Amino acid sequence: MTQPSAAIIIIGNEILSGRTQDKNIAYIAQGLTAKGIQLSEVRIIRDDKETIINVVNQLRQQYDYVFTSGGIGPTHDDITSESIAAAFNVALLRHPEAVRRLEEHYRDRTEDLNEARLRMANIPDGGTLIDNPVSAAPGFKIENLYVFAGVPVILQAMFDNILPTLNGGEPILSRTITADITEGNLAEPLGKLQEQWPNVEIGSYPFIRNGKLGVSIVLRSTSEDTLIAAAEDVSNLVQTYENML
Amino acid sequence: MTQPSAAIIIIGNEILSGRTQDKNIAYIAQGLTAKGIQLSEVRIIRDDKETIINVVNQLRQQYDYVFTSGGIGPTHDDITSESIAAAFNVALLRHPEAVRRLEEHYRDRTEDLNEARLRMANIPDGGTLIDNPVSAAPGFKIENLYVFAGVPVILQAMFDNILPTLNGGEPILSRTITADITEGNLAEPLGKLQEQWPNVEIGSYPFIRNGKLGVSIVLRSTSEDTLIAAAEDVSNLVQTYENML
Repeated sequence: MTQPSAAIIIIGNEILSGRTQDKNIAYIAQGLTAKGIQLSEVRIIRDDKETIINVVNQLRQQYDYVFTSGGIGPTHDDITSESIAAAFNVALLRHPEAVRRLEEHYRDRTEDLNEARLRMANIPDGGTLIDNPVSAAPGFKIENLYVFAGVPVILQAMFDNILPTLNGGEPILSRTITADITEGNLAEPLGKLQEQWPNVEIGSYPFIRNGKLGVSIVLRSTSEDTLIAAAEDVSNLVQTYENML
Repeated sequence: MTQPSAAIIIIGNEILSGRTQDKNIAYIAQGLTAKGIQLSEVRIIRDDKETIINVVNQLRQQYDYVFTSGGIGPTHDDITSESIAAAFNVALLRHPEAVRRLEEHYRDRTEDLNEARLRMANIPDGGTLIDNPVSAAPGFKIENLYVFAGVPVILQAMFDNILPTLNGGEPILSRTITADITEGNLAEPLGKLQEQWPNVEIGSYPFIRNGKLGVSIVLRSTSEDTLIAAAEDVSNLVQTYENML
């Protein structure tokens, strides 16, 4: 099975300080998984120009798609667009269509389209705009890099806009079997089932609920028939163990 | 100001697939910030041995402290300990004290300390144990690397155990000023305040509440006096703008 690969770069001191709980990774991850694109890694990095340049240049060569979150607003700490222009070694230009969208958005508002807000229309040369239906200021795409705002509701709208344009792979189907058993009881026979089903990825994820350990066994495969058969084996294993209790 | 640096490695296909929302990053981040340790980056990577080895070896040389989360349970997909032994080029040994703790934990239970569970006592040579008050199976420390379980309540207990042993830096103090103003209104004067207060990190974080944009302005500094003075300047700026509305 071949699947395009992807990475996410979260640009944000507020995540690294623990002030803000990230909500963007899971949203993008779910969309990519449904599309058959494998999210291979995520980096959360500081708002630092050299760091952004290095990480962007490393990952855009390594993966089919790269998504960034954060740092495209109007304030002094919004340095993502200029950093990405530097990473691609292109100029940061005021984009006429982005200006037009901002002018339209601010026309009937009490707030001004001041110079700080106009900075949000600065896009690396060669970039194409990504719609922002929430607050107008666009994201952008340049080559295989997609640059989103960090505010979750805006990021989600931007990601939803571009998702249909990505080349998907075979969708990964999954089945989850959850039981109030600690995973150590099933570990050995589950390992044998993994060997018997090499085309199914079997993951075992313990959790604690009401103070007791339980386990979710997640099976993933691009083949529905294989997945159903393997999931039946896992179900039987869980039931055999439950009957022994 | 000098602060030790740190990185987190989240090992988990379940985060990358979007199935699980990570809760460990924010917990560790908050603890480190309070201790005056700068969390410089986070990587979320797949359960893949070569990837774990490469990322561990890169980050442990780059930062003062590195923390990993996930992959030290009893099932076939738990490959963190063996990968870390390989990264340090040491043997993976059955640790007598870890065995003793598991024996004690399982002595009065209906569940067996089977071979799969005993794998949780395999620790890279030279590693020292990190207590797990929840389910006994320990984490471990080797050089500047701390290896935690992925289940949040267990990770939190392990992190709380080792946090007092870390060398902290000057604690970073913070003040947050929140206003129902869009950040673009304040962007230019806020940028000037950042220039006036070079020893204060001023971050501007927009949010959407009840469908309206607002902003949290977060000031960070190791000097309380400087922080209070800078925060007063920001408060005055916000009030000046609010009075104009």
